[in-house]
Amino acid sequence: MPDALVPVERLIEFCVQCFERLGLSQDDAKLTGEALVAANLRGVDSHGIIRLKVYVDRLRAGGVKPHGEPTVVSEGPAFALLDGNAGVGQVLSAKAMRLAIEKARETTVAVVGVRNSNHFGAAAYYGLMAVEEGMIGFAVSNAGPTMSPWGGSRKMLGNNPLCIAVPAGRERPLVLDMATGAVALGKILVAMTEGKSIPTTWGFDSQWLPTDDPRAVIEGGSIQPLGGYKGYDLSMVLDILTGVLMGGEFSTSIRGLYQSLTEPQGVSHIFAALRVESFIPLDDFKQRMDTMISLIKACPRAPDAERVYVAGEIEDEMEARRRRDGIPVNDVLQAELNTLAQELGVASPFV
Amino acid sequence: MPDALVPVERLIEFCVQCFERLGLSQDDAKLTGEALVAANLRGVDSHGIIRLKVYVDRLRAGGVKPHGEPTVVSEGPAFALLDGNAGVGQVLSAKAMRLAIEKARETTVAVVGVRNSNHFGAAAYYGLMAVEEGMIGFAVSNAGPTMSPWGGSRKMLGNNPLCIAVPAGRERPLVLDMATGAVALGKILVAMTEGKSIPTTWGFDSQWLPTDDPRAVIEGGSIQPLGGYKGYDLSMVLDILTGVLMGGEFSTSIRGLYQSLTEPQGVSHIFAALRVESFIPLDDFKQRMDTMISLIKACPRAPDAERVYVAGEIEDEMEARRRRDGIPVNDVLQAELNTLAQELGVASPFV
Repeated sequence: MPDALVPVERLIEFCVQCFERLGLSQDDAKLTGEALVAANLRGVDSHGIIRLKVYVDRLRAGGVKPHGEPTVVSEGPAFALLDGNAGVGQVLSAKAMRLAIEKARETTVAVVGVRNSNHFGAAAYYGLMAVEEGMIGFAVSNAGPTMSPWGGSRKMLGNNPLCIAVPAGRERPLVLDMATGAVALGKILVAMTEGKSIPTTWGFDSQWLPTDDPRAVIEGGSIQPLGGYKGYDLSMVLDILTGVLMGGEFSTSIRGLYQSLTEPQGVSHIFAALRVESFIPLDDFKQRMDTMISLIKACPRAPDAERVYVAGEIEDEMEARRRRDGIPVNDVLQAELNTLAQELGVASPFV
Repeated sequence: MPDALVPVERLIEFCVQCFERLGLSQDDAKLTGEALVAANLRGVDSHGIIRLKVYVDRLRAGGVKPHGEPTVVSEGPAFALLDGNAGVGQVLSAKAMRLAIEKARETTVAVVGVRNSNHFGAAAYYGLMAVEEGMIGFAVSNAGPTMSPWGGSRKMLGNNPLCIAVPAGRERPLVLDMATGAVALGKILVAMTEGKSIPTTWGFDSQWLPTDDPRAVIEGGSIQPLGGYKGYDLSMVLDILTGVLMGGEFSTSIRGLYQSLTEPQGVSHIFAALRVESFIPLDDFKQRMDTMISLIKACPRAPDAERVYVAGEIEDEMEARRRRDGIPVNDVLQAELNTLAQELGVASPFV
């Protein structure tokens, strides 16, 4: 069965209706739906509507509270620490980034942390909020353990994501949005489901040996960190900047998105905004970014390479295509969303 | 000939005297000498006294100005942009980090950029300045091009370093200090000098193909980015946060440390300090860091692994050893430093 191609607005509306049924306010439902589908738009399907069911399950089971109201733990002109009270990760994160942006308008740089939150989806969404305001945006989260320390044989660190998003002029914003693992867990899960082998650079087995067997990674093994020990170090530092610094959970005390649905994940995030204009005029900066990006893209192509891309460019092209053609949804996911539609009493997005 | 083991203080004193002869103030000479030898102490010999000769050469040729006085381009309570006026990278960087720390004491987070600077040595030195004050320190620099964009066959990005240093309690501070390449250029140079082959994960040849021939990397090839395209993206973002944002040189317009000694390198840096106490009490944070570090270090060891280390631990153990035993200097470097001593009229550190 071919994938359905669903118009973006219809998919968002479906998510919004589901979230409203589960007690989110209209605004919070809209934001969460938009953030999920934004990941699909950019081709990051692992963080898009494939997560809707588990979000719904967690909301129904109580692990995620439908409110999106954080409590301010501490605050100053250039920083804040928020307690998320186990609310919706996307709503808390968007509020935290909005606060960082407002503060950075006055102070040039601002940092806002959130503890006691849940899965926040794709980090790029928050980084790009800063870009809209002529700022450089930073977004980091910790996550349930899927990687082992370098040389260790137990999962103790998350595949923690880091986003740095930068405005440009006639070029599209540059968006680094990467996890600290060599690959997303989702890709290994897909290979396991399809009975395929994986590159030996993706995962370790339970003995910390590289393996091409996805099952050996999932069952007792771990994701390989990006670039060996450096990815491990980076993942640990991101856990420190979020969980340890914000007074939240860290390392093995964070629950994965699919574990114990009744309990909050205990995830922490950190967001920062940096106002470009305080350093050099924004127009100058945008021109310099355009120069940088076009310089890099004009780099002579290696014989084996298709093209030289800059960070976020593939995602931008995907977004243009999917806005025009719709978002592909395979039959398994269609069935899952149709079941959700029935259970929650909302209209199916597939007509 | 066995390596000489030189007491730390004597090696610092030698550097200080050389720098004073070249016109640095007593304070600036002391700081630069200490920063260089600090890298050796931590075992990062690629950024230690092996660089003294080229620093001296650049000071003599005019590429580095002996003053260490930056001009303030713009400033606010939580940020500053300094123009380094082609001064000594270490002196400018220490002043910038000191300023970031002072500002962060009031504002919790502060960012200070420097443009028109020179090679700043090992990034950890600046990160650790923040740690001393109960803060998390960030240090980034751009550098002359040694890496190509992913899929490209021309060097356009530096092996740009990132340091994040974090205070702990009874445990030693956690110090991430990594370049965005798979390996330091120095290691490839050493292999070439010794006629040895290198792992195929270190460099590309001029066709962007992995090679075990160090000469093919040095002559027309490039360093492989850390973890493939992610290391490339990260390197480009670090160049943006430094050169592009600070109004300095970036990408191919930065001169390498060993190129055109009469001209400034045009390097930019960015430093940030984050005051822990604004988020959670410093003692709590230190305890949480100790918990995190001991948890990770107690991770069951993989059969093939010697031990589980955290970032900076190997360097700390090296520092303890070298403070006690002295710093090893091989005969080639001894000869180089003795020549410098003669030329500058200072006493040799080797007695």
